[in-house]
Amino acid sequence: MKFTCTQGALARALNTVSKAVSIRTTIPILKGFLLSVKNGELTLTASDLDLAIETKMEVQSYEEGSVVVSAKLFSEIIRRLPNAIIQISEENGKMEISCLGSQFSIVSMPADEFPSIGMVNRLSKIEIKKDVLKDLIRKTTFAASIDEKKGILVGCLLQFKDGLLEMAALDGFRLAVASSPVDTQEEKSVVIPARILAEIQKILMENSEEETVSLVLDDKKAEIITKDTRIVARLLEGEFIKYRDILPTSCKTRCVVGREEMISGIERASLLAKEGKNNLIRMAVAPGGIEITSRSEEGNSKESISAEVEGDGLTIGFNSKYVSDVLKAVGDDEIVMEMNTPVSPCLMKPVEGDSYVYLVLPVRISAN
Amino acid sequence: MKFTCTQGALARALNTVSKAVSIRTTIPILKGFLLSVKNGELTLTASDLDLAIETKMEVQSYEEGSVVVSAKLFSEIIRRLPNAIIQISEENGKMEISCLGSQFSIVSMPADEFPSIGMVNRLSKIEIKKDVLKDLIRKTTFAASIDEKKGILVGCLLQFKDGLLEMAALDGFRLAVASSPVDTQEEKSVVIPARILAEIQKILMENSEEETVSLVLDDKKAEIITKDTRIVARLLEGEFIKYRDILPTSCKTRCVVGREEMISGIERASLLAKEGKNNLIRMAVAPGGIEITSRSEEGNSKESISAEVEGDGLTIGFNSKYVSDVLKAVGDDEIVMEMNTPVSPCLMKPVEGDSYVYLVLPVRISAN
Repeated sequence: MKFTCTQGALARALNTVSKAVSIRTTIPILKGFLLSVKNGELTLTASDLDLAIETKMEVQSYEEGSVVVSAKLFSEIIRRLPNAIIQISEENGKMEISCLGSQFSIVSMPADEFPSIGMVNRLSKIEIKKDVLKDLIRKTTFAASIDEKKGILVGCLLQFKDGLLEMAALDGFRLAVASSPVDTQEEKSVVIPARILAEIQKILMENSEEETVSLVLDDKKAEIITKDTRIVARLLEGEFIKYRDILPTSCKTRCVVGREEMISGIERASLLAKEGKNNLIRMAVAPGGIEITSRSEEGNSKESISAEVEGDGLTIGFNSKYVSDVLKAVGDDEIVMEMNTPVSPCLMKPVEGDSYVYLVLPVRISAN
Repeated sequence: MKFTCTQGALARALNTVSKAVSIRTTIPILKGFLLSVKNGELTLTASDLDLAIETKMEVQSYEEGSVVVSAKLFSEIIRRLPNAIIQISEENGKMEISCLGSQFSIVSMPADEFPSIGMVNRLSKIEIKKDVLKDLIRKTTFAASIDEKKGILVGCLLQFKDGLLEMAALDGFRLAVASSPVDTQEEKSVVIPARILAEIQKILMENSEEETVSLVLDDKKAEIITKDTRIVARLLEGEFIKYRDILPTSCKTRCVVGREEMISGIERASLLAKEGKNNLIRMAVAPGGIEITSRSEEGNSKESISAEVEGDGLTIGFNSKYVSDVLKAVGDDEIVMEMNTPVSPCLMKPVEGDSYVYLVLPVRISAN
């Protein structure tokens, strides 16, 4: 293998694929990048078995070939080289990298030991606006469980139905459901680990050239294809929780609050929300506003938040993180909170439309 | 105690004194700020016994008094409040903080348990340009030992003599000596912990209004006084190492190198400098340039650095950190390296003048 390219282009491509490099793996080859030169193109691949990323770039190719090198070392070397032409060649387990006055010789591994990224059955390919996908990921993945023991709850449902893509995530304490029209009549449901969707979102944010990406789904894998990059994610097996039934259809108390005001009020109240381990804040809803209170051994706090309140007043307790997470994920200026009793779930959503709902369980509070 | 002030001014003052708050102390009162209101001024004090910082700001005072509150909690509350008028009052072990719709009540501690910042005998007061002090600190403190067991080596010498302030730090492997003319005929030497000088430098950088600061030294303490802030540092006891004698007076090899080129060459070579635990890089000095090489199990590197070389060629080994530390601390475009043998110390300094010298011990390398 032998090729030349610019440092800048190679560093950008490495940045994309590095998101799939396994950090804690015990399999040495997964700590590496696969470099493959063919037809004047360099293909870079990284995989942690759950997620594989492959990106292509044009290079000046002198000799085709494939090899695996340490992802960490190779990235660090390329990142620190000046933005000039880099010459890379590989022979007999050694890769030579040279650029102006710098020369490196690093150990390489055979390419055939690298796991195949796998082909996804491309019978049905869905075109989707990148901004739509990013938006749905941002509004849902944070509600998934981060506890790997929770099975399907670490995943996020993607459901194509009736010309809509609906995404949903829940961790047993809260549920986020977001949907958006998409240009397909396909009906299909898959569950992708939320962790992987978060990585995909980062890649989509960094590669801003195209407006749409292609999504290909089969029974085992989801593939996202952009101009230069394809991302293959392993699907989670098993059935996703039926969440439609738990969404309340009526409410006794409805408040409209300013999102920014609520975020800063909750942030301040959280400073003293150490009662138990729930980051407990109390919200007393009354005509004209919400009073958020918290207390700890160090003291107590009270925040008066202006709100349009309809219906009954009530006092309800929340884990402050579960409320502020959603406020940070949505972009709207105002948010609706719909409640029934201090022990039934609270629904949060934008003032307009039904493209997003968030449900959060309250924390039971004592009477005082 | 009762006063009002703006959130912005209080947050800035807290940021200054917070650098002296003990993080790992077992003495609860040292985790606090002392707030004292008197004559329309709020004085904020923090102390970790080695370093005390006191800063003053004007407030609207309604009731004088003094109290101690948790530094972490108080800072976090003030930082998160909107930039508006804050009202603070204290009574019976409780401090009330209110600002627009936010109210906090936090536990307070009696002021009389807070350690006194101590008076420094102000018989002799040295005026010194802030930029000069910052520059000398930056060029020397990094060479001090960070191992608290090393006694005086964790300190930095400040020596006033013949109208010069000379600062020096050494850790047994390298020595940095910087000097600058100062407007005093005083002759005095003190040793201040390098860690504390680094904090002082940060404070000097943040408070950019004044051009000069006052320095007051007695046998136990050094005090630095700016318009609103005084910083009191405990001196280290014991005699500083006589470093003048170890500075070589002649050399067999002299190189002039570009600082930036050397920094990036060393950074890249360090990626493979894992031989032993010394971050070992080899420098082969020859007419026309320096070749930096390194190697590890993962591979090896070679960097060609252009240099004006006079005298004998030689190959010498260094801990790469000890060379790059000094290159990052000085601002000059070009640096001189003076060497004698592969086992004698290397002197580094700017091309012009003798206001700065850095001495670094080589690492013994095998012949190949």
